[in-house]
Amino acid sequence: MMNEEANKIKELAECIYDLDAEVYSQLGSSIGRVYTRDREHCVNEIVHLLVTRSESKVIRSELALISNMARTIPDKQERKLVMTEYNRIIQAVSDLPDSFSGGDVINLEQARLNRFNLRNRFSDDDHMIICISWAYGSGGADIGFRLADRLKINFYDKEILEAVLKRLDAQKDLELIQASAKANPNDTAQSHPEVLNLSEALRTDMPVTLRQRMREFSRYHGLPKQDAIFFNQSDLLCEMAKQEDFVIMGHCAKTVMTNNRIPHISIFISAPMEQRVRRIMEINSRLSVRQAQRMIRKADQEHRQYINFYTGGEWGHANNYDLCINSASYGIEGTVDFILEMIGDWKKKK
Amino acid sequence: MMNEEANKIKELAECIYDLDAEVYSQLGSSIGRVYTRDREHCVNEIVHLLVTRSESKVIRSELALISNMARTIPDKQERKLVMTEYNRIIQAVSDLPDSFSGGDVINLEQARLNRFNLRNRFSDDDHMIICISWAYGSGGADIGFRLADRLKINFYDKEILEAVLKRLDAQKDLELIQASAKANPNDTAQSHPEVLNLSEALRTDMPVTLRQRMREFSRYHGLPKQDAIFFNQSDLLCEMAKQEDFVIMGHCAKTVMTNNRIPHISIFISAPMEQRVRRIMEINSRLSVRQAQRMIRKADQEHRQYINFYTGGEWGHANNYDLCINSASYGIEGTVDFILEMIGDWKKKK
Repeated sequence: MMNEEANKIKELAECIYDLDAEVYSQLGSSIGRVYTRDREHCVNEIVHLLVTRSESKVIRSELALISNMARTIPDKQERKLVMTEYNRIIQAVSDLPDSFSGGDVINLEQARLNRFNLRNRFSDDDHMIICISWAYGSGGADIGFRLADRLKINFYDKEILEAVLKRLDAQKDLELIQASAKANPNDTAQSHPEVLNLSEALRTDMPVTLRQRMREFSRYHGLPKQDAIFFNQSDLLCEMAKQEDFVIMGHCAKTVMTNNRIPHISIFISAPMEQRVRRIMEINSRLSVRQAQRMIRKADQEHRQYINFYTGGEWGHANNYDLCINSASYGIEGTVDFILEMIGDWKKKK
Repeated sequence: MMNEEANKIKELAECIYDLDAEVYSQLGSSIGRVYTRDREHCVNEIVHLLVTRSESKVIRSELALISNMARTIPDKQERKLVMTEYNRIIQAVSDLPDSFSGGDVINLEQARLNRFNLRNRFSDDDHMIICISWAYGSGGADIGFRLADRLKINFYDKEILEAVLKRLDAQKDLELIQASAKANPNDTAQSHPEVLNLSEALRTDMPVTLRQRMREFSRYHGLPKQDAIFFNQSDLLCEMAKQEDFVIMGHCAKTVMTNNRIPHISIFISAPMEQRVRRIMEINSRLSVRQAQRMIRKADQEHRQYINFYTGGEWGHANNYDLCINSASYGIEGTVDFILEMIGDWKKKK
């Protein structure tokens, strides 16, 4: 059995040697041949490379070199014959237990959750959740907004999510008020107009009264408000993910989705400093270059700390997302197109 | 003229206010309305947001909130009417000079060179150049090799490129030798077998003789050898890019292409430490976890220094590539699929 395997590998090594010789004779060049020593010596060397995983990249390079040359064979018929043999060899080498194609770098759990992954289909029950993180000034927020608009799905950023949370809280409050109004007809909902005002919720923090503080204390289960908001938002995101497709900006959404094993796409959008500065200055024309740079550095620093604190991950590092896109290479609409291209295909296949 | 513009904006603000009111009345909810104060006050506020670029993200959030709610209107006919009005409004807001959709982050030169960019077509004369950088242990080299194999185009890595350069040098030498052989028939090419041996060139540095040193000195124009190799390889890459499609691994190829204004795709492939360690240990089973980690850190450090020295760019940072892919999210074949998906589409469109 062992001998059979060894014979197969030796045969393969001979095929590789012969292929190189064939390409060399076809091209008739006085230079450029991969194996120039006697056949036996070369075949033994190739066998060694084929059975030694740590040396397998050498044989990969040698095979690539042979095929690079083979593609220049002028006679079409001959070239086709040679390439057919090459393809057979590559397949045979790939099938060896110690070949360069052994193993993978995949994180199966992560791949299972990755909606961009063409190799993994998802159930029809799953919603399309797109988590976008971005560097300040890279146009990421606009990209997310337009992406949601073109997909006709909901868009959530920090402000909207907070407004939704306040609305949900307000709903609870309103129910309490209505219950208490029934008990005490002198107190009506009209005396609490702030619970209805989403525009206010979007723009400012409402004035804090002692009563609100008490309400917040019980709402946040005694946690520091910042932490409580994070956990409330996480719960909300998981609830939403069961019900609808959406684009969610920032908010460690990617970590929340991963931890709760909800399939999603995670994208990081960035751009070089120069383009970010230009964009920030275009949005706020009163800023100088130095002020814009300072704002960007400060924003990066805050993002980094926030992400590191709540997720332990490294912000903006390619390892933490399924895909990182440089918006300076595509522009805002171009980046949306690029993402849609991948999603559109996924939808078709699904 | 100014008044006409101002009237148009005020009208648009009124449409936004009315849309919110309409959505609110359709949903009949006692909570959740974006604008709750009197019409005039709200319209004035919206006008302010529409003409103030630095505040434009507030109106973007408010519009997103309205449309998020509008999508929940149960009556299909009513929902369609409301969404049509919403789309009209979004378009009108986007067309305003100070709207959130003003400006871009695009680097036009970079976008022009980016072959992934669906918005820019390229001439049929351009070849498909795919520059892949990768983190050691991320499977990047295998991804590049398989990508080239599936595209049936040439694959170049450091070893192959050096072999090609040596072959070109050998060709020059051979010509010199042949010329000198004509002049002096006692000296034949047989006494220089190393110039024909690409397998040797792939595997080891050849023994250095004084004669080789002299040859190298003139070949490298007196530059330090490392620099000369870089410049020789850059020239070679530019020449190759005029003649063929290829996948090129590492080698600051992306910078060479950009500096020489050659359209290409630049991809960075990375994976989290955990997967990289696993892969390195799978390739070389004698390594311990700590040894694998040390090798990865050393490789990263060397890459960083090399790239920084020759290109001034930051290695592995999303800003320096058109696209960064986390191979742990896709696996090796999955990453190849993903890249092919984008290229395949580009080929169709071209």
